[in-house]
Amino acid sequence: MLTLYYAPRTCALATHIALAQAGADYATRRVDFSRSEQRSPEFLQINPNGRVPALATDRGILTETPALLMYVAQCFPAARLAPLDDPFALAQVQSFNSYLCSTVHVAHAHRFRGQRWADEPEAIAAMQKKVPQNMAACFELIESSLLKGPWVLGDTYSISDIYLFTIAQWLEGDGVDLQRFPKAAALQQRMAEDPVIQKVLAEEASTGTA
Amino acid sequence: MLTLYYAPRTCALATHIALAQAGADYATRRVDFSRSEQRSPEFLQINPNGRVPALATDRGILTETPALLMYVAQCFPAARLAPLDDPFALAQVQSFNSYLCSTVHVAHAHRFRGQRWADEPEAIAAMQKKVPQNMAACFELIESSLLKGPWVLGDTYSISDIYLFTIAQWLEGDGVDLQRFPKAAALQQRMAEDPVIQKVLAEEASTGTA
Repeated sequence: MLTLYYAPRTCALATHIALAQAGADYATRRVDFSRSEQRSPEFLQINPNGRVPALATDRGILTETPALLMYVAQCFPAARLAPLDDPFALAQVQSFNSYLCSTVHVAHAHRFRGQRWADEPEAIAAMQKKVPQNMAACFELIESSLLKGPWVLGDTYSISDIYLFTIAQWLEGDGVDLQRFPKAAALQQRMAEDPVIQKVLAEEASTGTA
Repeated sequence: MLTLYYAPRTCALATHIALAQAGADYATRRVDFSRSEQRSPEFLQINPNGRVPALATDRGILTETPALLMYVAQCFPAARLAPLDDPFALAQVQSFNSYLCSTVHVAHAHRFRGQRWADEPEAIAAMQKKVPQNMAACFELIESSLLKGPWVLGDTYSISDIYLFTIAQWLEGDGVDLQRFPKAAALQQRMAEDPVIQKVLAEEASTGTA
């Protein structure tokens, strides 16, 4: 049994979707960021880094979205969520996912999490101001170079599409219109119509405890 | 044949070491950051993101350190650079490497690359000021929770050790004494004594063209 620790509107959505699309037997535990539960002693036992997602497995806890996505793809190969038998194509998946976690997610994080990198309110405001420009630049690179279309890898759907869908959810809030990027917008639209993804989104949006 | 595009004192060192330890047949091409060669039209054809490392393969270019490290491990399984047959242990490698690229490398990057996230000189200075605190916090988490010892995974050497060695090279410049972290310092010392790594470091330190 797998248990996913998540919070709504975070990158944990990617692992949530992957588990659902893989047909995994899993449970979810919502971490209440409004009460800073991610900093509670109980949650720091789960993930000492105080972040979601975290995935509890029979062998221990795993963290970090690119790792969890690949783990789900490997544990449920029948779902074909990654090109597991082709090291080059798998490296393309990993390359894209690394770009999302280390550049795009980080660009987004400067909107709400500027205090990670500076103490002065003026500096934090300066970072927030640049978020739309940076997120637009990231999606320009994705659209022009990284997203082959119709999926990230071309004709093959993968965890990279799930991860891109997840981060694209933040774009409007970051002040960037996804419609400027036709391939990314079309990918987003196709995935939003998937009943499995709709069910995951509905669960995360519900106000009840998970 | 593989060709690694690198610049000294960057995270490209990790892939360089992995290629050397794997016994790969590879060439290197130094990208001259002092002349902003990473922004030249020629290099943007290699990596439109304008960064190193980039690895040219027979099937195309790959980028992003976690992806390149796993690719090298998969292409040269005899070198045993990753637990390829154990999805859970492999996810632990990926989790650690994702933490390094998305949190630790990013914390470091606020020292020299603050202009990525803000335009105002005061904001960039505020980011620089916080780098020692953030890098120390990252290595405290690594030392207390992530690095099992003697290697990241415990008894098994992996690409995670190579990546940690690479980023630990920056710590003194970031204003943090590695000796505060005994397990990380011991790992660093052991690896610095490896003749293969010494040869890679010597090549990167040489002033001649690569």
